[in-house]
Amino acid sequence: MRLLAIGDIVGRSGRRAVKVNLGGLRRELGLDLVIANGENAAGGKGITKEVAQELFASGIDVLTMGNHVWNKKESFEYISRETRIVRPANYPPGVPGSGSGIYVTPGKVKVGVINLAGRVFLPAIDCPFRKADEIIARIKEKAQVVIVDFHAEATSEKVAMGWYLDGRVTAVVGTHTHVQTADERVLPGGTAYITDLGMTGPIDSVIGVKKEIIIDKFLTQIPQYFEVATGPFQFNGAVIEINEDTGEAVSIERIINYE
Amino acid sequence: MRLLAIGDIVGRSGRRAVKVNLGGLRRELGLDLVIANGENAAGGKGITKEVAQELFASGIDVLTMGNHVWNKKESFEYISRETRIVRPANYPPGVPGSGSGIYVTPGKVKVGVINLAGRVFLPAIDCPFRKADEIIARIKEKAQVVIVDFHAEATSEKVAMGWYLDGRVTAVVGTHTHVQTADERVLPGGTAYITDLGMTGPIDSVIGVKKEIIIDKFLTQIPQYFEVATGPFQFNGAVIEINEDTGEAVSIERIINYE
Amino acid sequence: MRLLAIGDIVGRSGRRAVKVNLGGLRRELGLDLVIANGENAAGGKGITKEVAQELFASGIDVLTMGNHVWNKKESFEYISRETRIVRPANYPPGVPGSGSGIYVTPGKVKVGVINLAGRVFLPAIDCPFRKADEIIARIKEKAQVVIVDFHAEATSEKVAMGWYLDGRVTAVVGTHTHVQTADERVLPGGTAYITDLGMTGPIDSVIGVKKEIIIDKFLTQIPQYFEVATGPFQFNGAVIEINEDTGEAVSIERIINYE
Amino acid sequence: MRLLAIGDIVGRSGRRAVKVNLGGLRRELGLDLVIANGENAAGGKGITKEVAQELFASGIDVLTMGNHVWNKKESFEYISRETRIVRPANYPPGVPGSGSGIYVTPGKVKVGVINLAGRVFLPAIDCPFRKADEIIARIKEKAQVVIVDFHAEATSEKVAMGWYLDGRVTAVVGTHTHVQTADERVLPGGTAYITDLGMTGPIDSVIGVKKEIIIDKFLTQIPQYFEVATGPFQFNGAVIEINEDTGEAVSIERIINYE
Ligand SMILES: [Fe+2]
Ligand SMILES: [Fe+2]
Ligand SMILES: [Fe+2]
Ligand SMILES: [Fe+2]
Ligand SMILES: [Fe+2]
Ligand SMILES: [Fe+2]
Ligand SMILES: [Fe+2]
Ligand SMILES: [Fe+2]
Repeated sequence: MRLLAIGDIVGRSGRRAVKVNLGGLRRELGLDLVIANGENAAGGKGITKEVAQELFASGIDVLTMGNHVWNKKESFEYISRETRIVRPANYPPGVPGSGSGIYVTPGKVKVGVINLAGRVFLPAIDCPFRKADEIIARIKEKAQVVIVDFHAEATSEKVAMGWYLDGRVTAVVGTHTHVQTADERVLPGGTAYITDLGMTGPIDSVIGVKKEIIIDKFLTQIPQYFEVATGPFQFNGAVIEINEDTGEAVSIERIINYE
Repeated sequence: MRLLAIGDIVGRSGRRAVKVNLGGLRRELGLDLVIANGENAAGGKGITKEVAQELFASGIDVLTMGNHVWNKKESFEYISRETRIVRPANYPPGVPGSGSGIYVTPGKVKVGVINLAGRVFLPAIDCPFRKADEIIARIKEKAQVVIVDFHAEATSEKVAMGWYLDGRVTAVVGTHTHVQTADERVLPGGTAYITDLGMTGPIDSVIGVKKEIIIDKFLTQIPQYFEVATGPFQFNGAVIEINEDTGEAVSIERIINYE
Repeated sequence: MRLLAIGDIVGRSGRRAVKVNLGGLRRELGLDLVIANGENAAGGKGITKEVAQELFASGIDVLTMGNHVWNKKESFEYISRETRIVRPANYPPGVPGSGSGIYVTPGKVKVGVINLAGRVFLPAIDCPFRKADEIIARIKEKAQVVIVDFHAEATSEKVAMGWYLDGRVTAVVGTHTHVQTADERVLPGGTAYITDLGMTGPIDSVIGVKKEIIIDKFLTQIPQYFEVATGPFQFNGAVIEINEDTGEAVSIERIINYE
Repeated sequence: MRLLAIGDIVGRSGRRAVKVNLGGLRRELGLDLVIANGENAAGGKGITKEVAQELFASGIDVLTMGNHVWNKKESFEYISRETRIVRPANYPPGVPGSGSGIYVTPGKVKVGVINLAGRVFLPAIDCPFRKADEIIARIKEKAQVVIVDFHAEATSEKVAMGWYLDGRVTAVVGTHTHVQTADERVLPGGTAYITDLGMTGPIDSVIGVKKEIIIDKFLTQIPQYFEVATGPFQFNGAVIEINEDTGEAVSIERIINYE
């Protein structure tokens, strides 16, 4: 089977990139499942029901999240109900939503999707490594294919997670930095890995935000309202070819499309 | 002219990667200048005179540094004297060494090299943006071609620096994360940009370090001695084609070689 | 002469504490100048014209600020004009407002007030130590008595600043942690020092904020709106007895009043 | 009963302060138990068997630790065996040592001692709040009197812990900042609280370290070897008067002695 993982979708521009690209990619590549990081989909910060439904309508099957998952309090109830949204599993017990789910492809393959968040330079949530152990033990009984979106800042934490889960899951794909990395590969144990899928959103921006705003912030250190940039988009992600019988990845290939 | 910029060289493995790759690349690509980030060249942390001289002998013309520049106190005096070593220019006044230099290619082109370090998730040194302004104003009188190694963690800070200097320098190449990014391009103003050149060192490692050590550190949070990994190397960098009359970049191309 | 320095005033509760306490203290102690940290005076975050004027009317002569100075964009213009407000001097050039001022007591003593902010665990602004050197050199020509409000998180940075300026200014008083420290003393060079003046605001709170909110934040790691607590107030500060001829501090005494 | 809690003992100077002060205090105050934070007792960083035994010989009954607990690898085995040493309980499973213990006073009162570490600006270990719940549930079955040393940086996290445990333990005493706070009080639920006990070590220092070294570090941002300062010491701590039948604190009083 073939799975597409899309990097952080940022605002209106990113949603347009999904709409424009996904139909063609589905046909061309014969995709069985499409997951995407949606933590910046609503105006650059968080998600709403309307935005999520627009993305599902564009062909995304599962939305994973990240540190911006809690940006819109009005969406907590929706995040709790919507089974196609998965937020970082290593938030403490009691927070809204779920950290993993099992999704069935048209070809009846069960795919487990786990979302984890890093802790280096990010909020002090529960250990993503031990949480991975815990969920994988559970999910592997039901799904042979398991994809982990590890939403984290530090390359050390992300690369370590790749090695830690090598041979135990189908793929570990990183998100959060909004810049695609060129280190995609299938690790020796059969796990596809990439440090960051990149960003799906406005090209001429600083990781999605109007560049003048971010530059001004660095020059003055005065907090700013981060407005999503406009202009042509980029579409970032990776296609993973999977042996659904073994749950091993066969290959991983980066995608960068420009408007 | 053609310049090669090499990502963080890590330990013995990285130095071997340079020795093995650089001769061939110089010939094939007709390189006029080779710069490399050497902050991890000596046992993964800092630089020594012996290690620097080994790298110069392998064909590197200029070594830039980063947050690990001060790891070996016994090298401070050497860093102060060696004009082919450039450390982040935005360290406070009074620290050893120099933050920029001008180097002459065999074809008599003067190339300014500036090293800057980011401050997001890193030590609180002087503003890299204002320091860039200051040095560029000075160096541009003497060198048409100017290369900036921006050694930083956060993608936001690095991408912002690219835009900030677009049209004012020939290239902004990022270092420090040890993972090459796939966002190389020539920005609209003529500045070649890449968020991170990646790492030249052991492939099967966590950003150069033995993977078992880093995984153990994440699992226990007990500080560890970071031993450089062994095994086959990767060679990471980018080649920049430059119009030496205008100082503009014509193209930037990533290099990833494996042992 | 005698100067009162008041710790971070938080919200309505803190302003009431000032109003209730300051008249009596002025009379009892024969105060010549009253400075206060006002960075949390308006609803816990930042300052407004109305709130500042209320505090001036209550008897405060100078308001210093901190990392929350930029919380209310509508006040930037006011902060720029109001000479009785001083914001951290080590923000980069070009930001609104001034980092120091000279104020004249009823007894015609000129008192320089400098506001600096720390960088450990706080925004990466300019070096507070070098900025202190620069301003002191300038201000000492006009004012014998100089008070520094060093708004910082880490005790190491604050204690270091005390020693760095010992013998060069009249007092270094710390703010920002909202908890008064018990280390007040006159250092050997004649500079009064305290790591933190504490908080003037609601007692039964977590540094001014409703305690249930902060506890919930620590338990869930979900960002929260920080509502200022209500209930009885505490008034925190320190009185510094000064030899106005030499500019040396004679004594420093902590004040903690409860409603 | 009466318990003395001593703030972070730093190096030789701090150990001398204990030796000089503790005998007298034991007699004067009629102390039933003495606990002390020992994370900096050996040369400013960590603990060794020799240093611990010197402190036990001086009259300390229990040593709690902090983020420096892992500084000396050669002591891991000792920390694992020595039941009078308690390290932060919220380190992940599998690390050496224990996070709590029960100690019996000469008058046969059982006192539970729990060590926890904060996560704000500190390593990402397990949640100290949930870990507190877990241990208290267990320890309360065996000991009526329970003391928590919460080793943390941020005042918000420490004050929040005080409120969180109010009425459930006898005392929450903070350590780590090396500066004593003046906010000691018995909270409404009967829990004695202080944000930081302070430091027992060299007075004329920056939180125990030679002041010239720390100032130089702030000025240059070059990492330094942190040498413990010499000269006269201070002894910092707090005495807690406890109703051993109810486990409630009756009073808490700060101690600051100078050499
Ligand atoms: Fe994102
Ligand atoms: Fe994110
Ligand atoms: Fe590096
Ligand atoms: Fe680095
Ligand atoms: Fe404050
Ligand atoms: Fe503050
Ligand atoms: Fe300590
Ligand atoms: Fe500590």
